[in-house]
Amino acid sequence: MSQFWSPAVRALTPYVPGEQPREKLIKLNTNENPYPPSPAVEQVLQRFAVDHLRLYPDPESLALREALAKTHGVEPEQVFVGNGSDEVLALAFQAFFCQPKPLLMPAISYSFYPVYCKLYDIAYRTVALDDQWQIALEAFESDNGGVVFANPNAPTGHGHPRQAIAQLLARITESVVLVDEAYVDFGGESAVPLVADHPNLLVTGTLSKSRSLAGLRVGYAIGSRELIEGLERVKNSFNSYPIDMLASEVAIASLEDESHFRACCDQVIATREWTRQQLASLGFDVLPSQTNFLFVRHAEHSGATIFGGLRERGILVRHFDKDGLRDFLRISIGTDDEMSSLIEALQAMQ
Amino acid sequence: MSQFWSPAVRALTPYVPGEQPREKLIKLNTNENPYPPSPAVEQVLQRFAVDHLRLYPDPESLALREALAKTHGVEPEQVFVGNGSDEVLALAFQAFFCQPKPLLMPAISYSFYPVYCKLYDIAYRTVALDDQWQIALEAFESDNGGVVFANPNAPTGHGHPRQAIAQLLARITESVVLVDEAYVDFGGESAVPLVADHPNLLVTGTLSKSRSLAGLRVGYAIGSRELIEGLERVKNSFNSYPIDMLASEVAIASLEDESHFRACCDQVIATREWTRQQLASLGFDVLPSQTNFLFVRHAEHSGATIFGGLRERGILVRHFDKDGLRDFLRISIGTDDEMSSLIEALQAMQ
Repeated sequence: MSQFWSPAVRALTPYVPGEQPREKLIKLNTNENPYPPSPAVEQVLQRFAVDHLRLYPDPESLALREALAKTHGVEPEQVFVGNGSDEVLALAFQAFFCQPKPLLMPAISYSFYPVYCKLYDIAYRTVALDDQWQIALEAFESDNGGVVFANPNAPTGHGHPRQAIAQLLARITESVVLVDEAYVDFGGESAVPLVADHPNLLVTGTLSKSRSLAGLRVGYAIGSRELIEGLERVKNSFNSYPIDMLASEVAIASLEDESHFRACCDQVIATREWTRQQLASLGFDVLPSQTNFLFVRHAEHSGATIFGGLRERGILVRHFDKDGLRDFLRISIGTDDEMSSLIEALQAMQ
Repeated sequence: MSQFWSPAVRALTPYVPGEQPREKLIKLNTNENPYPPSPAVEQVLQRFAVDHLRLYPDPESLALREALAKTHGVEPEQVFVGNGSDEVLALAFQAFFCQPKPLLMPAISYSFYPVYCKLYDIAYRTVALDDQWQIALEAFESDNGGVVFANPNAPTGHGHPRQAIAQLLARITESVVLVDEAYVDFGGESAVPLVADHPNLLVTGTLSKSRSLAGLRVGYAIGSRELIEGLERVKNSFNSYPIDMLASEVAIASLEDESHFRACCDQVIATREWTRQQLASLGFDVLPSQTNFLFVRHAEHSGATIFGGLRERGILVRHFDKDGLRDFLRISIGTDDEMSSLIEALQAMQ
């Protein structure tokens, strides 16, 4: 604590990301993709005109927004880009959720949401998941200062179909509904087609997971022109050039390689379903998942015990030491070999 | 204006960066370096292990902070990094300047400072420059909620020696003094050595100008551990991973190439002094500069007239259409050829 900090900064509780271990472990803790990005990325770096780096990038990131617009069937004016979807989310909280009424969010979802609320002094209320560990969309009150949730949800893995989001939007028309689709490409259904009819819908996404580009930091939002303009106003009061030239070119090359993207997602999905069966046969309760992770608990062993046993065997998964989540582990889907090692380690621990 | 925007967002006045023209112009408007970055940068891109991009980067950017610490003779714990120094400045305003007392800044300095104040609802007071267009450090009251200025200052170009900053710090001990050294490598004197004795001093810098890496977006701050910890708290409540893997490796390679850096800075300084003499002989009043730009006005022609005439001749400089600055032009230092073209264009306009 320092006398020089702004008073509000003294009360912050920063987000804690999953560990990035320096030793060699099978890393199933931060939902990274086990497959490399598109081979086109290497071409970009080989051919990049380094001299251009002396110049500022396009502050509007038009080329990248055009590529994202094409991928998602919208106009470039409906696309906002940022330094990872975490930045996009932060700017969206500031742009839309600093309201007199409280923001609504699920009691269990991405744990960065309450951190943003504290940063921007946003009042919020949480809504309990239903008894299937699914977001109870019907429990969100219509009168609110905004709604935010991940779909599919993290760390639980369940995704609502587009129709369920449409029903929510039929009720909530006076505040922004932010649907965080970080994991949608692993079997979820995107709400982006609803943007055309719902000026208050903002959908965020990332190239970190399904495009294997976590190391690059590119995220985006898709919404009506008025929501995108609101994000631009905040961004242009914060940082004119959040997307560097290399990140832009690499991201565009990745977006243009649809077949690599599809093949990697399909493989992750296949490995996830194999892993689910194996875990179930070992006595785990495995929640349904439309993501690149599984949220699991064991009838006889605590989350902390299994986490510790796996770590001793060189496998890192994610354990949230938090009420309601303590029994569970979140296990990212790796390669087939990595998941076989996981299953073998769990068998050895029994 | 949209009903969905947070009320405060409706009142924002975003920063407007210098134009990035799509046509081919001699570009002397955004203080970019005319020389390419270190040749080591190309090596980094050729050798970069693209597969690593599937993983998240180190959220603490330790390798980059170590490289900056070595360059500046401080400890890594005294270094903070961000997505360009604009992001570093924004986070610093939030971390330190949200105070009951008003922030002090020069009436003429980097025009992003008042924009941050509006974004974070920070009250501020401006202090007039002296009659030499220099920051009147002695006019900053000791009782304040913080002090921020660029040294050397932009767009005027004058830099105070370290001793003058030390005198200011002898008086102001209860609030943060932020010295923005974006231009210091072109002949200014850095305040970084004062950090050891002044826990309230924060110095920011960038690789955009003197390292020819504007397209990469890497900036930093150097200060006491308690100030760096304050910045980390805000950053970790905003975006866990602001520095992507490519940016980190390219920045480190650039920092390690001292001779290329020094040679480029020396050449810019030499070209600046040649340009100064030429402009003076054409009847311009040229303010002294320790930066990579010159701030000039002509006794007979308005800033707007000269700006327009140069633009017609394919040369883009910066004109601020703002009280007190309207007579002036800010001219970035390009290559010798570019500056010869500028002088020829001005001669042709007479």
